[in-house]
Amino acid sequence: MTDAGCTFEEQLELVCEAVTGTDPAWEQRAWDRLDQLTKPPRSLGRIESLAARIACIRGTDHPDAGRKAVVLAAADHGVVAEGVSPFPQEVTWQMVANFSARGAAISQFSASVGAEVFIYDVGVVGDTTALDSVYQVKVAHGTENMALGPAMTREQAAKAFLVGVEAARELAQQGYDIIATGEMGIGNTTAAAALAVAYTSAEVEQVIGRGTGLDDAGLLRKAEVVRRALHANEINALDALGKLAAVGGLEIAMLAGVMVGGAEEHVPVVVDGFISGAAALAAVNLCPAAGDYLIASHLSVEPGHAVVLRALGIEPILQLDMRLGEGTGAALALGVADAACRMLTGMATFAEAGVSGSDA
Amino acid sequence: MTDAGCTFEEQLELVCEAVTGTDPAWEQRAWDRLDQLTKPPRSLGRIESLAARIACIRGTDHPDAGRKAVVLAAADHGVVAEGVSPFPQEVTWQMVANFSARGAAISQFSASVGAEVFIYDVGVVGDTTALDSVYQVKVAHGTENMALGPAMTREQAAKAFLVGVEAARELAQQGYDIIATGEMGIGNTTAAAALAVAYTSAEVEQVIGRGTGLDDAGLLRKAEVVRRALHANEINALDALGKLAAVGGLEIAMLAGVMVGGAEEHVPVVVDGFISGAAALAAVNLCPAAGDYLIASHLSVEPGHAVVLRALGIEPILQLDMRLGEGTGAALALGVADAACRMLTGMATFAEAGVSGSDA
Repeated sequence: MTDAGCTFEEQLELVCEAVTGTDPAWEQRAWDRLDQLTKPPRSLGRIESLAARIACIRGTDHPDAGRKAVVLAAADHGVVAEGVSPFPQEVTWQMVANFSARGAAISQFSASVGAEVFIYDVGVVGDTTALDSVYQVKVAHGTENMALGPAMTREQAAKAFLVGVEAARELAQQGYDIIATGEMGIGNTTAAAALAVAYTSAEVEQVIGRGTGLDDAGLLRKAEVVRRALHANEINALDALGKLAAVGGLEIAMLAGVMVGGAEEHVPVVVDGFISGAAALAAVNLCPAAGDYLIASHLSVEPGHAVVLRALGIEPILQLDMRLGEGTGAALALGVADAACRMLTGMATFAEAGVSGSDA
Repeated sequence: MTDAGCTFEEQLELVCEAVTGTDPAWEQRAWDRLDQLTKPPRSLGRIESLAARIACIRGTDHPDAGRKAVVLAAADHGVVAEGVSPFPQEVTWQMVANFSARGAAISQFSASVGAEVFIYDVGVVGDTTALDSVYQVKVAHGTENMALGPAMTREQAAKAFLVGVEAARELAQQGYDIIATGEMGIGNTTAAAALAVAYTSAEVEQVIGRGTGLDDAGLLRKAEVVRRALHANEINALDALGKLAAVGGLEIAMLAGVMVGGAEEHVPVVVDGFISGAAALAAVNLCPAAGDYLIASHLSVEPGHAVVLRALGIEPILQLDMRLGEGTGAALALGVADAACRMLTGMATFAEAGVSGSDA
């Protein structure tokens, strides 16, 4: 993975510097076509703006979202030692086994929208090598406890990020049109909350939620843990990688890399819920141009998600009161993106169909 | 179609009387299973309640929404003589041709979610017999101008309704798991507005919208036309069929029949936008038990739609600022319903997957 004489951090910087934003001329060309299609202008609302966005990302007014990938990154979190989740840490491994056996929600949602799921062990404590279809890209056996010090070294965070970049590149190479981000990691809403505070001006209270199901006492403990983590780590306001390393997670770093890699390849990346949103914050802080390639899938009930989406400046497509993660919201949005692209690419124009226009 | 010695209206009454509501025990059984699946309980929000609803409608805790049908009913409206649409009446026929050639938005959305579109000419003014794949079920060559008197006779409305019942029965027979309703008919938001006023306590102003794109003057004219239609027709408050005949449309009557036919067959019927919503009002006024089988797909920007959904007591799944009709919102919701059913039916339980539970 490492080039001769180049640290992971240096490689990350090279990748991020090379990304360029989208060309707004393509968005305009998409709207020109949208307004000629056999429907009252703009009558498909957000489906039209989604189609125009994807057109702009792909650089075509005939985009396709037929080949859909879900990157499902799994890793453990040392901060679980602080009692921030009602589920034990083993559940990360167990759920990876469940993904591998196609028994999880993301397995079913992906099948429903015709997406392929790619499972990555980028930092699970247990050994996943015996499980089918799990990419072995482990950077560490989980993070350290961020309440006591940095969750990762800078090199670990950069390495996990580069794993994500490489995953996006390979998927683009294989012809995938669109990538959804998903994650699994017991304790990762705590890391996401700390990242949200580190990358935005949000207060801890605004980004703390019940995760997989904390009670009121657990919620107070989680807020306290996030505060301790932010105190235990000296975080320079301008050091995007330092923040990710200090209070992030290996799967979060990897997903940030997927987003920047997607941007590099001009592939739209659909952001799932709160944890994917925290990864997106890391991505755009490391590589501002990558923001152009992000699509928000849904609004999670995890309260920090709205804060994160506001900071990212992207509007969610769906509001379904979901809070599972795994990429479930993003997978549903892949279906909507497919419909949007088919609409823009496949519909007849008024002229082609011989349909009379409006007299308005 | 008519049984010996039995009018269409009598047949309609027999159909409506035979429908029974859903059995709530199935909804409970679905929730029992949902809470054992490998996810934090209720973490899939509205997807879980949608799955439970479909389970209840189908009478199984392993429902399937794999075989999806869109019933696309087209008809013309005499009220276009009043200048209520910026598009000329020919567009109804032209759009049926566009559906037939798979060039319309609904064609693309249906392909995206794997749904089959069934096109019915239940009242287009022009001749559609030369078009491919258009079911010829014409009850009349468009309705009369409701601003001057009844749009349809009671027998016409009942006959169009029975065409819809038959369509739902045939689709159920062919093994379709779920049916979406779509429509095409220049002028039909005016009929839908009049029906919304007739079936609910709404004021005309609350249910009048721009349809395919009216300007401000057109909007005022449309409100005036709806008022005239409601005055021109003596409508008995308890006469559900009388209201449908007086200010409805042939495609609207047919879709009401699809909804009641779906209920008869225990097939969920996904309601599209404002016009489908008006058909749903007719359906539940004719046959209150049919309400249990309706699923609201999306919230249209056509202002009357929210009024209609409130009256129906069903919550839309999607909010995408759409206002096209054709079943486009319902088709997208078919995709979500498919994901919901696969989740409930296909996910592993905690016990099956060997995943540890929460300590909460």
